[in-house]
Amino acid sequence: MKKIKAAIVGYGNIGHYVLDALQTAPDFEIAGVVRRDAANIPAELNGLPVVTDINALSGVDVAILCTPSREVENYASRLLAQGFNTVDSFDIHGDIPGTRERLAKIAEAHGKVSVLSAGWDPGSDSVVRALLEACAPKGITYTNFGPGMSMGHTVAVKAIPGVKAALSMTIPVGTGIHRRMVYVELNDGADFNTVAAAIKADPYFAHDETHVQQVESVDALKDMGHGVNLTRKGVSGKTQNQLFTFDMKINNPALTAQILVGAARAAMRQRPGCYTLIELPVVDLLPGTRDEWVRRLV
Amino acid sequence: MKKIKAAIVGYGNIGHYVLDALQTAPDFEIAGVVRRDAANIPAELNGLPVVTDINALSGVDVAILCTPSREVENYASRLLAQGFNTVDSFDIHGDIPGTRERLAKIAEAHGKVSVLSAGWDPGSDSVVRALLEACAPKGITYTNFGPGMSMGHTVAVKAIPGVKAALSMTIPVGTGIHRRMVYVELNDGADFNTVAAAIKADPYFAHDETHVQQVESVDALKDMGHGVNLTRKGVSGKTQNQLFTFDMKINNPALTAQILVGAARAAMRQRPGCYTLIELPVVDLLPGTRDEWVRRLV
Repeated sequence: MKKIKAAIVGYGNIGHYVLDALQTAPDFEIAGVVRRDAANIPAELNGLPVVTDINALSGVDVAILCTPSREVENYASRLLAQGFNTVDSFDIHGDIPGTRERLAKIAEAHGKVSVLSAGWDPGSDSVVRALLEACAPKGITYTNFGPGMSMGHTVAVKAIPGVKAALSMTIPVGTGIHRRMVYVELNDGADFNTVAAAIKADPYFAHDETHVQQVESVDALKDMGHGVNLTRKGVSGKTQNQLFTFDMKINNPALTAQILVGAARAAMRQRPGCYTLIELPVVDLLPGTRDEWVRRLV
Repeated sequence: MKKIKAAIVGYGNIGHYVLDALQTAPDFEIAGVVRRDAANIPAELNGLPVVTDINALSGVDVAILCTPSREVENYASRLLAQGFNTVDSFDIHGDIPGTRERLAKIAEAHGKVSVLSAGWDPGSDSVVRALLEACAPKGITYTNFGPGMSMGHTVAVKAIPGVKAALSMTIPVGTGIHRRMVYVELNDGADFNTVAAAIKADPYFAHDETHVQQVESVDALKDMGHGVNLTRKGVSGKTQNQLFTFDMKINNPALTAQILVGAARAAMRQRPGCYTLIELPVVDLLPGTRDEWVRRLV
C-alpha cells in the first residue's frame, strides 16, 4: 500500500500533536515540517526534514495546516495553487462559508482538495449537530463547551499589543451560553485596562460575557483538557420529546490533531473542491477500505 | 423546487411513522402506499393511492421499504431492477456486508441508488461509532441498548410457530452486553417449552442471555420508547483517556422513520450504488442546500 505523504505546516501546539497522530497512523508517512524558523529544531523532529518552503520536501500529497486560524486562508490558497491538498482546523465560525467558497474556487481550478474547519468544533461536533438535525428536524440544539482552554481565543488574546502570555478559559453556563475567563501576563509598561478593553472588543469575545484578569504566571494555570456537552431535544416526524446528548472530555489539541489527520486521509478520496466535515462520508476519515468498516461498525 | 416523490412500501409500524415524517418534510410528496392488502385502508391513508404494485403509482423517485428486515433484500432487488431508488432499515448486522455487495451490483447495473440499513442501529449509531473511531483510533466502543422494545427481535419471535403475540425487550447490562426479555402470548395448543427453545435458538437470540415468559396480554406491556448509551474511551495520537458518550432516549419507530426519510433524500444525491449511512455525507440527509447547512451547523 502506498502511504499518504503529509507535510506539517506550522509547528506550534497543534503541529506537535499532528506529529503524534501521523506517527501512529498506519497509512501515513511524514514528508517533513514547514516552519518559519528551520534552525531551532525540537528534539522530536530529529531525523525529519524541517524546511521553510514546502517545495523543498519531496512527494507531498497533503499539507496539514497547523497555523493560527487567521493565517489559514492565506496558506491554503497558496498551497492549493501550488498543487497540494490542504486540511486545516480554521475555527472562526462566521467566516467559514466565505472561506469555503473562495478556497473551493482555487481547489477546483487546480484539481485539488481542501478540507476546511476539520477540528472538533467546528468539525466533529458539526457532524453530530448535522446528524441530530436529521434525527429530529424540529427542535433546539445546545452546544456547551468547557470548562477548558480555547486555543483559538487564546491565540487571539496573544495577538493583542501588550500581552506577554495569555490563557482564555471557556466556562459553560448552560443552553449554549458561555463565560470567557481570560488570564494575561503583560509586557513591561503595558496598561491593563487598555489590554482588557482590546480583548473585550475582539470579535472572538465581543458577544460573550468576558472577564480579564492579570496574573503572574499564565503557565501555572494551563491544562489542555476540554469538554463538550451537546444536546438536542426535538421532533421526529410528528413524535415529540426525542432526546439526544453527546458528551466528551478530551485533550483539546490531541483531538484536533487526530481529526486533522483523518481529514487529510479523506482529502485524498474526494473530487476537487473545498469541504467541511459534514460534507464528507465519515468512513473516509478512517484508514483501510469501506468494506472493512461496514463490516466492523455498521 | 421539484419535490421528491416517495412511495411507502409496507405499511406496518414503521410505514405509519414514515407517513408522519414525509408529511412534515418540506421537500417530499407522497406518491402512495404499496401493501399486500389494498382493500382495508386505515383512515390516515384516505386521499392517498394505496396499491399492491408500485408501478400503479406515478413518478416514484424512491421507495421507502417498511417491510420486515428479512424481506428487504428481495424487495430492494426487485425495485432497483425496476428503476426505483430504495432505502431500508435492514437490521441484521451480520448480513449487511453481503446484502450491500449484492444490492450494489443491481443498483449499478440499473443506474439507481440503494441506501441500506438506514435506521438508528444500524444507522445513526453507526455514524457516531465511525466518527469516534476517527477521533480516537485506539480504544473500545461499547453500544448499550435499551431498556426498550426491539422491533427486529419482536418480529423474529412473531415468526416462530405457536406465537400469537410477542414483545422482545432489550435490557442493557453494561459494556455492550444485553439481556433479552421476551414476552409471548401463545396460540391455542402451542407448547410453551417448544416455543421458548425455538426463540433461544433463533440467530437473533442465540448469542444473548434470553428469558422467555408467557403472558396474558402482550399489548398491555408495549411501549415504543428506546434508548442507547454509546461510549468510547480511547487514544488520539499518543494521548490517552479521551472520553466520548452518545446518549439518546427516543420513540424507536419514529426515529427509524425519520432517518429513512433523510436517507431517501440522500439517495437522490449519490452516484449509482449501495451505501450504508457511514458512506454518505451527513449533510445529504438534510433538506435544502449544503451552503445553508454549512452556515448554520459547522
